[in-house]
Parts: sequence; C-alpha cells; structure tokens
Amino acid sequence: MKISVFIATSLDGFIARQNGDIDWLVNAGDANDPEDYGYGAFIATVDCIVMGRNTFEKGLSFPEWPYAGKRVVVISRTLNTTPEHAAGKVELSAGPVEQLAAQLNSEGHGRIYIDGGKTVQSFLRAGLVTDMTLTRIPILIGNGLPLFGELREDIHLNHIETKTFRSGFVQSRYEVRNAQITAVR
Amino acid sequence: MKISVFIATSLDGFIARQNGDIDWLVNAGDANDPEDYGYGAFIATVDCIVMGRNTFEKGLSFPEWPYAGKRVVVISRTLNTTPEHAAGKVELSAGPVEQLAAQLNSEGHGRIYIDGGKTVQSFLRAGLVTDMTLTRIPILIGNGLPLFGELREDIHLNHIETKTFRSGFVQSRYEVRNAQITAVR
Repeated sequence: MKISVFIATSLDGFIARQNGDIDWLVNAGDANDPEDYGYGAFIATVDCIVMGRNTFEKGLSFPEWPYAGKRVVVISRTLNTTPEHAAGKVELSAGPVEQLAAQLNSEGHGRIYIDGGKTVQSFLRAGLVTDMTLTRIPILIGNGLPLFGELREDIHLNHIETKTFRSGFVQSRYEVRNAQITAVR
Repeated sequence: MKISVFIATSLDGFIARQNGDIDWLVNAGDANDPEDYGYGAFIATVDCIVMGRNTFEKGLSFPEWPYAGKRVVVISRTLNTTPEHAAGKVELSAGPVEQLAAQLNSEGHGRIYIDGGKTVQSFLRAGLVTDMTLTRIPILIGNGLPLFGELREDIHLNHIETKTFRSGFVQSRYEVRNAQITAVR
C-alpha cells in the first residue's frame, strides 16, 4: 500500500496562512489555465483519503463536497460523531496513525492520500509516508501553517522527478527511503 | 547591483541543525563527484560577500579561509573589532542593511552574495534581495536553523529555471519581483 502526500506550499514551507487562508495559492495560478498540476492523474490512483479535522471542515465549506466517490477518514481526537451534514461522507478515526494504516492496508487499499499539515506530520513521524509530491509556489508569505514539523530522526528521500510550470510552480516527486509501511504490508 | 542568495536547505527548509551542523548536507553529496552545483560559476560573478557573525566564525574554522580574494563584510552588532586572526580578511558593519546596501552600491559593486540565515532574512525583510538560487537536499531533518523568517509582507518571485542533479538535489533560481534595490541604484 502506498501512503502519499500531494500538496502545495509557499517557498518558505507554509500550506496556508495562520488563519487557514490560501489566497496566495489561489492567486498564484491563472484561473483560466486548465493546468491541474497532476492532481487529476494523482487522485485517480487514490482509493482512500485521510485528513485531519481542519482539512475536513475546509472541505465541508466548499459548495460541493470535493472528495465525492472516495472513502474519507477524518482523524480527530475531539470529534465523537460525524456532523449531520457530513453523514455518509466520512468515517472518524481517533488514531493512532500506525493502527489506522494497518487497518486500511488490511482492507485492501492500494493508495492512501494524506492531506493537511498535522496529518502529514503524524504520518511522517511514524515513518508511514511512502511518497510525496510537493509543489512549490513562487512566493514567500513569512508565517502560517507549516507543512513539516518535528521528527524523531532524519528522513531520507529519493528524488524521482521535478516538473516546472509556466506559472512558476515547481513540482518535485520523492519516495521515502525505508518507509515503515513495509511492516504493514 | 544584484543582491543574491545562493544556499542549500533540507526539504523542510533548514540550512543547518540547531547546533550549526551540516553533516546531513555534506553526507548527501558524493565526495568523489566533481559536481559543484553551480557554485564556482556563481561566485565568479560576485565581488562582495555579506554574512553574519555565525557564518563568519564558521568560515574561520575551515583550514583555509573560504572567501579569499573577495571583499567580505560581516554584519554584527556585538563585534567591535575584527578578531586578530581575521585581520585584513573582513570588514565589520553594524547595519542597518539598507545603509550597507546603499554604500556597497555607491562603491560600484556589481553583485553582492548574502550568506547565512539571519543575514538573508534581514535583506529579504528589507526588500533588498534581487535573486535567489535555492538547492533542496532530499532529506527532512525536523528542526534546525531556518533559511526563511518573518516578513512585513508577501514577497513574489519569478521562477527562472530549475535543475536537477544525480544526487537528488533540486536547484531553483528565482528573481524577486519589485526588489527595493532599484532605489539604491
């Protein structure tokens, strides 16, 4: 099972401003440009999405539920029941991520998409991420919600490929060396 | 006058571990690989190097002074006199960076190389950096000395080019939009 990250950050490593705003990201692209930066091809390979409560609530705020057709697991230690308007859309998990990964693997999933800063950090700290596609937006925003956080030890990556786009976005794909997910195969 | 940054960071944005160690950077390359990641070509275009006290002291710790043949300015609010063993190698400046940049420009320099995290941050905050070459090492180290810091406002960049290397290093060159250096031309 692959456990994948696919996310954009500012050049200084933030996924959103402190208040969650991604105006800098939305405005960095050209609204008329049909370029999707590989998201469509990526999401077509994904059969389950794992996210934290913040990303989940952001998803609920969109006019349409953006994860339709995919199994979605929300990791939260505070949510006990799925909010009514999200009924049938998501499952809740209290973690820990090692247990969740083992469960999803045993249920036959091929590729899990990990979304949101804290969730990505939890999976990385547990050595559970197998690959990351990082898109760097050509802007420095100074502060905000960081993609990466503290680790127990260095994580070595293999660079697979890098693509550049007319918008100035630079997208690099990495595989994590020695991902622990082999343990739950 | 160009004011340029040329620096390597971990994928999570650190230029060194908390104690200054760059073992993760040194070990990431192949010691037998003659690849210099464009440093030779870059430094040949530079006629003055500006750094902070930490980078200066790191430079003094090498067997040979690594900046021989270049004018070096060390920004420090605590150093009043050049240490004896660095006599003739560097000049001191107490800042502010706006004044230093204006002075160096009036003295006819073509390209200044800004080295060290805090110094890069000061010049960026003042809108004085014109271009940055950032080399991403394929490793996450979790914490350390960050390249970037707080800003007064967003800084927009134009992506110029990205190169990838066999070692997995990914090097992107950016120009800063609306750099204030035009004001001191």
